[in-house]
Amino acid sequence: MGSAVAQCPHGITSHSTGNLGQKKLGYSSRCSKFPCQLDFARFGLLHQGSSAASSSDHSTEFGRRINAVPDMDDMFWDKVPTPLLDMVENPIHLKNLSVQELKELASEIRSELSCIMSEKPNSLKASLAVVELTIAIHHVFHAPVDKILWDVGEQTYAHKILTGRRALMRMMRQKNGLSSFTSRFESEYDSFGTGHGCNSVSAGLGMAIARDIKGKRDRVVTVISNATTLAGQVYEAMSNAGYLDSNMIVILNDSRRSLHPKIEQEPKTSITALSSTLIKIQSSKSFRKFREAAKGITKRIGRGMHELAAKFDEYARGMIGPQGSTLFEELGLYYIGPVDGHNLEDLICVLQQVSSLDSMGPVLIHVITEDNHQDAECNEKIEADNPQEGMITISYDDSVSSSVQTRTYSDCLVDSLLMEAEKHKDIVLVHAGMEMEPSFQVLQETFADRFFDVGMAEQHAVTFSAGLSRGGLRPFCIIPSTFLQRAYDQVVHDVDRQKIPVRFVITSAGLVGNSGPVYCGAFDVTFMSCLPNMIVMAPSDEDELVDMVATAAQIDDRPVCFRYPRGAIVRTDHFMHPGIPLEIGKGRVLVEGKEVALLGYGAMVQNCLKAQALLSRLGIEVTVADARFCKPLDTELLTLLCENRKIYSGGQLYYPTATSKTGCLRNN
Amino acid sequence: MGSAVAQCPHGITSHSTGNLGQKKLGYSSRCSKFPCQLDFARFGLLHQGSSAASSSDHSTEFGRRINAVPDMDDMFWDKVPTPLLDMVENPIHLKNLSVQELKELASEIRSELSCIMSEKPNSLKASLAVVELTIAIHHVFHAPVDKILWDVGEQTYAHKILTGRRALMRMMRQKNGLSSFTSRFESEYDSFGTGHGCNSVSAGLGMAIARDIKGKRDRVVTVISNATTLAGQVYEAMSNAGYLDSNMIVILNDSRRSLHPKIEQEPKTSITALSSTLIKIQSSKSFRKFREAAKGITKRIGRGMHELAAKFDEYARGMIGPQGSTLFEELGLYYIGPVDGHNLEDLICVLQQVSSLDSMGPVLIHVITEDNHQDAECNEKIEADNPQEGMITISYDDSVSSSVQTRTYSDCLVDSLLMEAEKHKDIVLVHAGMEMEPSFQVLQETFADRFFDVGMAEQHAVTFSAGLSRGGLRPFCIIPSTFLQRAYDQVVHDVDRQKIPVRFVITSAGLVGNSGPVYCGAFDVTFMSCLPNMIVMAPSDEDELVDMVATAAQIDDRPVCFRYPRGAIVRTDHFMHPGIPLEIGKGRVLVEGKEVALLGYGAMVQNCLKAQALLSRLGIEVTVADARFCKPLDTELLTLLCENRKIYSGGQLYYPTATSKTGCLRNN
Repeated sequence: MGSAVAQCPHGITSHSTGNLGQKKLGYSSRCSKFPCQLDFARFGLLHQGSSAASSSDHSTEFGRRINAVPDMDDMFWDKVPTPLLDMVENPIHLKNLSVQELKELASEIRSELSCIMSEKPNSLKASLAVVELTIAIHHVFHAPVDKILWDVGEQTYAHKILTGRRALMRMMRQKNGLSSFTSRFESEYDSFGTGHGCNSVSAGLGMAIARDIKGKRDRVVTVISNATTLAGQVYEAMSNAGYLDSNMIVILNDSRRSLHPKIEQEPKTSITALSSTLIKIQSSKSFRKFREAAKGITKRIGRGMHELAAKFDEYARGMIGPQGSTLFEELGLYYIGPVDGHNLEDLICVLQQVSSLDSMGPVLIHVITEDNHQDAECNEKIEADNPQEGMITISYDDSVSSSVQTRTYSDCLVDSLLMEAEKHKDIVLVHAGMEMEPSFQVLQETFADRFFDVGMAEQHAVTFSAGLSRGGLRPFCIIPSTFLQRAYDQVVHDVDRQKIPVRFVITSAGLVGNSGPVYCGAFDVTFMSCLPNMIVMAPSDEDELVDMVATAAQIDDRPVCFRYPRGAIVRTDHFMHPGIPLEIGKGRVLVEGKEVALLGYGAMVQNCLKAQALLSRLGIEVTVADARFCKPLDTELLTLLCENRKIYSGGQLYYPTATSKTGCLRNN
Repeated sequence: MGSAVAQCPHGITSHSTGNLGQKKLGYSSRCSKFPCQLDFARFGLLHQGSSAASSSDHSTEFGRRINAVPDMDDMFWDKVPTPLLDMVENPIHLKNLSVQELKELASEIRSELSCIMSEKPNSLKASLAVVELTIAIHHVFHAPVDKILWDVGEQTYAHKILTGRRALMRMMRQKNGLSSFTSRFESEYDSFGTGHGCNSVSAGLGMAIARDIKGKRDRVVTVISNATTLAGQVYEAMSNAGYLDSNMIVILNDSRRSLHPKIEQEPKTSITALSSTLIKIQSSKSFRKFREAAKGITKRIGRGMHELAAKFDEYARGMIGPQGSTLFEELGLYYIGPVDGHNLEDLICVLQQVSSLDSMGPVLIHVITEDNHQDAECNEKIEADNPQEGMITISYDDSVSSSVQTRTYSDCLVDSLLMEAEKHKDIVLVHAGMEMEPSFQVLQETFADRFFDVGMAEQHAVTFSAGLSRGGLRPFCIIPSTFLQRAYDQVVHDVDRQKIPVRFVITSAGLVGNSGPVYCGAFDVTFMSCLPNMIVMAPSDEDELVDMVATAAQIDDRPVCFRYPRGAIVRTDHFMHPGIPLEIGKGRVLVEGKEVALLGYGAMVQNCLKAQALLSRLGIEVTVADARFCKPLDTELLTLLCENRKIYSGGQLYYPTATSKTGCLRNN
């Protein structure tokens, strides 16, 4: 334990939870008290003891992951000075800054983020949009006693910088480095792990209820994004929050990035001076107390009156609010907004008002932020780095987009689907998941009215595909492995049980490199193979992928799925051939050998081939077979392989006997 | 194929899709033309040929399931005469009935349903509530060309009666009988299978888009219930429907059965003469054309105006509508309502207006129905059968509730949780799923503020439990196996990946008797066991269940789950003992024998014991072991069992060798 802590010089703790907001520090005193830029490496060491005491399990876990302190030379790259930020070790140091100082701090964080994230323009934009909001939250609330939850990884970068992880930001998404999401193993300021979006309201409500039961008084603040509002869980959670009526604050960070291309044409919410005044009235203590009182009285008077009063209140605020406000009111959340997400005075005023009230139930604060809100110098830098800055491009996989020349499995899928669409005019495409791979933009353009990207609504995507199929079309439903988990019940009951031909294209299957565990698609082979009607296959290379697209297009009496990994295809000189449908449930032998047999499935076949090449140099004759189908399983092939050979499948060694016909496929 | 059809005398087809609504039949002519009560058995035979021709694959599937025609004596029990219903073979026969005749038909269907469902009072109520709505839908729309979709099985009974399945209604939920849900294998009038609720809008939207792409003009009507609106998928689907703007009609059947006990106190929507007039105005062609025109004009004028016009329109209708109306408008559906669901004139008027328009995008019609709306004589019968008729009791499992004396696994769980709650004061309970088992009402009463039933919001339930755990409480999350599928991603990312101690109680695991495939919980062992941090266990009897509750309560550093089957416990004389936590990952040997070893998991252990008893009479010595844990697997026990024995596990025979340490658990 001790050594683990020693390995973790940047143990992230709050040292002052006992006397929050009591420490009075002037600007000048802070200068001498806190480590200046050059002393930065001492940060963690100063507080090592308390770190071990207050959150030893967190530190231990974190310590295991952070094995090396970043090099000092890496840390102080050419950048504008950040005198205020250098003095902020954890959020308590924001408490006594003036609004003007907070604004300067925002500017410094922007500059810092721009430097760190310069190679990831889209992540940068999302993280810049919430700088003021993050500062306002940490200025008003008392994390980690108050719980701050986030929905989207990219929006937590300013939060990470302000909660002791500044020195490690450059190591994000690297081995043993920071996660690009919040993680409870990384910091006690991360109350809950962000993951697939849309979970923060549910988790926050749980914490709020736990607090009520325990008789505590801490606050729960969850920040959701407008992309998140596509996902059904948010509605489930808000509806339940409205019913349970526990105090919690939901902040809708509306980045005004439109969720669907067409909606661009629609009017956007405008923020005027008037709305700035109005949200202050809405959030004011007296207005809300009046409302509560009115609710109480009308409840006693009777039904009609109550309804009328509620309606009056709702519409009085609805008429001055933007479209969308009443939706939240219907779900039972008190709506406040819209608030300008870059106006620190407004943000702090509203948050302070809301936090000062004790029995108001759930509140939704609608904050409008701009992806493009940046300092002038910052803007120039980003525009230089990213000339297409006006476009909404989505950086799904940084590793791929940075090496544009590499042809990926997704590129092959696109070409293959375009070929199949020539044969089958009834092909339609449904895409779901948090983001869309750049490769698929070609599909979106080519298929136009036959490509449906539904975003974070995977449940809907699957049943919608089933509906398209029942309507006589030939749907392919494209979902990353990890997000298909969100639609499992729909796969089971709306597709498989009804034996409806939907073709699932499972992308980003298996390990996903630096995108880490949140996007890891490890479980699909298991949870799809147990379904009675599903055909489950995986291509071992790009040619196989093309054939499997053709196979899936042809199958029209039952559901089928195939998975492929993220990243580059096997051959650099790949030539697209027209897909030839495979025989269902039949594998193939790639290399014949007498002593040992290797059976691969999907991308693992390439590893088997590499092993075969190595072993053949040692004089060991190896058979390599490609299972192609996990279900139905090619038992004949298995029997053949078993005959007089040792079988290695994944890491498992089988000594088959003559009668054994069972096989076991393992997959990464 | 031929024999299959011959086995299915009640082949369900529409014979007149070509000339819908063109046949003019007066009341008297129908009397002679259609088979009267005594000729009822001829129904199917009359149309056997067309059945085979028009939907041979449906008939074949259905034929396999319906092996026996019901006995005539069973069919004509003592009941009131149903002259009109006797003449309705399929929905086309409703086309030319007058409103007065349709009202009489409604009365006849009520009487029929009351007789059929007399033993299932709650199912009866739900099915009675939608009789008029079903008649109105089939009177106005042209199924099966127009697609009618349902969310909830119980609400489809009148639909089944009107679509050729009347004679088979008594065989519902019996072997080879009718499904209690819609099924595309059962009738071409069932466009999509109802299942876990909330899927009909997604599926309907898919069909609507397919229709648009194919250039057809049929209508899509989906009927959702107010219970369904707890589930997130409905919001995903409605939001996407609003965006895609395809023509479809969503009917919200608001049964006014409150979703949460507390909300009973809140005012309910009242339907007055005024609202009856107003909904007619709302749905009128001219009003909606005006609205479309206004939208078009303001779109061209500019943003501000468009927004104002939309708002005006919304609030103009919102102010006269009930609370909830604007929610649907915000999601992009044109709201009409509330409509009295028992007023056939209103229903038909509104549906006709809506169906007559071609380019209006998705419409939501809010229909208010009463569970208790019945004819006087019907009422008496039900009250006599069910003295507690005023209470909202939920009949989760008819087989169980009918034999009240039998003690179930759920009863044991309840007692066990009550005991554990004495030890651990921080236990909280979260329940999700379509319905709640009667056993759990004790928990709801005893735990009061620590029991959260969130209904069909399983995704929320799981993350909410994770939040409760992070808030310092000890949550048990109780979900039927089949509904846990809907929260799989949340189990993976919000619980397991974050290693948060949530205790999943998986009820109704495995086969579920006459509740059939829709509620079958076959997959949980598979999809839970592949998660890295999850402990997966299953009790072999009630004592083991009690111990596993204690084990789960004690585990506080990782998630854990255990599953138990629906139905009665093993011993009739079971005595509750305090639970003793089990050693994690250790199975046990129940019977020692030398020749053969049987390894069971969960309920299957009882079958192993029965087999052992039978085999011992034949002189075969059998070892029976209870795996207890599927993960971590007790490999030591497996090795022990392998030594010099044949192992049977499920249906799979292994011939182990000395070094084989692998095992395979199979489960029903």
